[in-house]
Amino acid sequence: MLLSSLGEFGLIDRIRNRFGGRRRAKGLVIGMGDDAFAARLSVGHLLVSTNDILIENTHFRRDWISPFDLGYKAMAVNLSDLAAMGKCKPLYALIGLGLPEDTTVDYVDKLYTGMNKIGGYFGLKIVGGDTVLSTKGVVISVTLIGEAMQEHLLTRAGAQLGDKIYVTGTLGDSAGGLYLLQKGIRQGRGYIDCLLSRHRLPEPRLSLAARLTATRQVTSMIDSSDGLNVSLRLIAEASGVGARIDIEKVPVSRALRQLANKFKDADPLDFSITGGEDYELVFTAPPSAAKKLSRMAGITAIGTITAGRHVDYYLNGTPKKITTGGYRHF
Amino acid sequence: MLLSSLGEFGLIDRIRNRFGGRRRAKGLVIGMGDDAFAARLSVGHLLVSTNDILIENTHFRRDWISPFDLGYKAMAVNLSDLAAMGKCKPLYALIGLGLPEDTTVDYVDKLYTGMNKIGGYFGLKIVGGDTVLSTKGVVISVTLIGEAMQEHLLTRAGAQLGDKIYVTGTLGDSAGGLYLLQKGIRQGRGYIDCLLSRHRLPEPRLSLAARLTATRQVTSMIDSSDGLNVSLRLIAEASGVGARIDIEKVPVSRALRQLANKFKDADPLDFSITGGEDYELVFTAPPSAAKKLSRMAGITAIGTITAGRHVDYYLNGTPKKITTGGYRHF
Repeated sequence: MLLSSLGEFGLIDRIRNRFGGRRRAKGLVIGMGDDAFAARLSVGHLLVSTNDILIENTHFRRDWISPFDLGYKAMAVNLSDLAAMGKCKPLYALIGLGLPEDTTVDYVDKLYTGMNKIGGYFGLKIVGGDTVLSTKGVVISVTLIGEAMQEHLLTRAGAQLGDKIYVTGTLGDSAGGLYLLQKGIRQGRGYIDCLLSRHRLPEPRLSLAARLTATRQVTSMIDSSDGLNVSLRLIAEASGVGARIDIEKVPVSRALRQLANKFKDADPLDFSITGGEDYELVFTAPPSAAKKLSRMAGITAIGTITAGRHVDYYLNGTPKKITTGGYRHF
Repeated sequence: MLLSSLGEFGLIDRIRNRFGGRRRAKGLVIGMGDDAFAARLSVGHLLVSTNDILIENTHFRRDWISPFDLGYKAMAVNLSDLAAMGKCKPLYALIGLGLPEDTTVDYVDKLYTGMNKIGGYFGLKIVGGDTVLSTKGVVISVTLIGEAMQEHLLTRAGAQLGDKIYVTGTLGDSAGGLYLLQKGIRQGRGYIDCLLSRHRLPEPRLSLAARLTATRQVTSMIDSSDGLNVSLRLIAEASGVGARIDIEKVPVSRALRQLANKFKDADPLDFSITGGEDYELVFTAPPSAAKKLSRMAGITAIGTITAGRHVDYYLNGTPKKITTGGYRHF
């Protein structure tokens, strides 16, 4: 069934009935279906909000990702931005969709089901947006609104000389998944499934970010959406510092190593440093916090904040030049 | 100069330096340039938020509208959604931009200058967003965040049997401007300039909406973004009522009448009832408020709320069928 058989308002009604009302949200005063939505934040909390736009053939290919996974990922990418702000509670999502005329109702249902699935994990409610015709491919704009206490917010600025640099999880898996898609491999078992899932269904690190914030030791934080190298450069720039990374310490998954064993031109070092879309956290903390942080699962120290205002890489003590630098839109 | 000569991060820096910091905003805690922005709302106020997405060749043609006007309009359209909520103070904007590779820096500057111009009139601050490559044309997603007291919010629901129906300003001018563009007329004097301006630079009715809300008489409100007929149907549906419109009362501008005199196939009745993008307010109030409302400039009573759950039109007392119904995306 094509969207044209429902019509614009039929589609809006369908979205509202299926995805607009199921979850209770105590602060919500006016929900989906008016000119805007209205909600009350918790007393003493700040509003925290972010917007990301995903465009077909720039961010995704419809033949490489299912609508469920695409919806899931569009939401995950934005949730990761909230995670990067510290201890932040996601609340509401506004979804702007541009859809080609030949889009099926089933495609839209699955897109929303994916968004709603991950939204449900994090207590997020879809409260509105806009659905319009796009002559040239799918466009997804997600705006998330959350709340946080001011003392629980972390920015990219704040890294201090001598701070240790940490990352969560493993890096490069999403780039490994993209590599497989580019080779025409869209499904498989074992490491293939693992890397494709990491690329298609990233897990935003909200609970880990909250726990890290609670230590009161973290001095700066960002997510790794555009790759480790870009994240480090942004922290360095915002904090007025530099960074030294010991490449051998950068955590790489077993799946990515298996990929590198099978495909000789797949370079795990390149993927883990310049590959984007892992949506892990990159953060800094003073050396005095090292012991406390080392007891937390899923984080790895990979380097040190320096004075130099540039990001330097060393492999087993030898300087190494990193030439590429993550995806650039222009 | 093309965007590629600045690069993605150069562009982001340029936008931040030019448009991210000039205006003070007392509640703003973290502004443009981090993973999200953070702000404190006024005590006792609700968050009010809306998102609209504008896509090239669906909502606009780049050869029909200048980048300044396009930026201005993208913001105006969203401000109108906040106006339709009652007495609402716009605060922050998140801008998601999809831009083709051959976009010039000058184009983006003018787009932001237009957004910032109208934003400035209403105390709005651009605090973030996302700028990405779009292979197939310009995409603009605007999310506005404002605040309002709960008792100052109006929805589409609330119209009561017997209420009078009002509109602000004149209707059909934007459709008249679009008609001229479709005829290849992109500039001119007198009525042409007037209609093209109404199409390209709509004025959101925020202050009038605030004054109407302050009367405490308005029972429902919506803007006329998709045309009067669609607005009435949405109020009727949300309120569980119907409407009777006396077509001869619908306010039509002198410019639109002049257009109809020159072009025999330009029908002011059709433009004013089914034409969209005027961004006027459509609202209802009980008959007891009629005297008070009649003293306010710029509003016109055009009909009455009925029991019938459908929207009926009369021209000088004779029923008239309205066959078309505003722009439909699908």
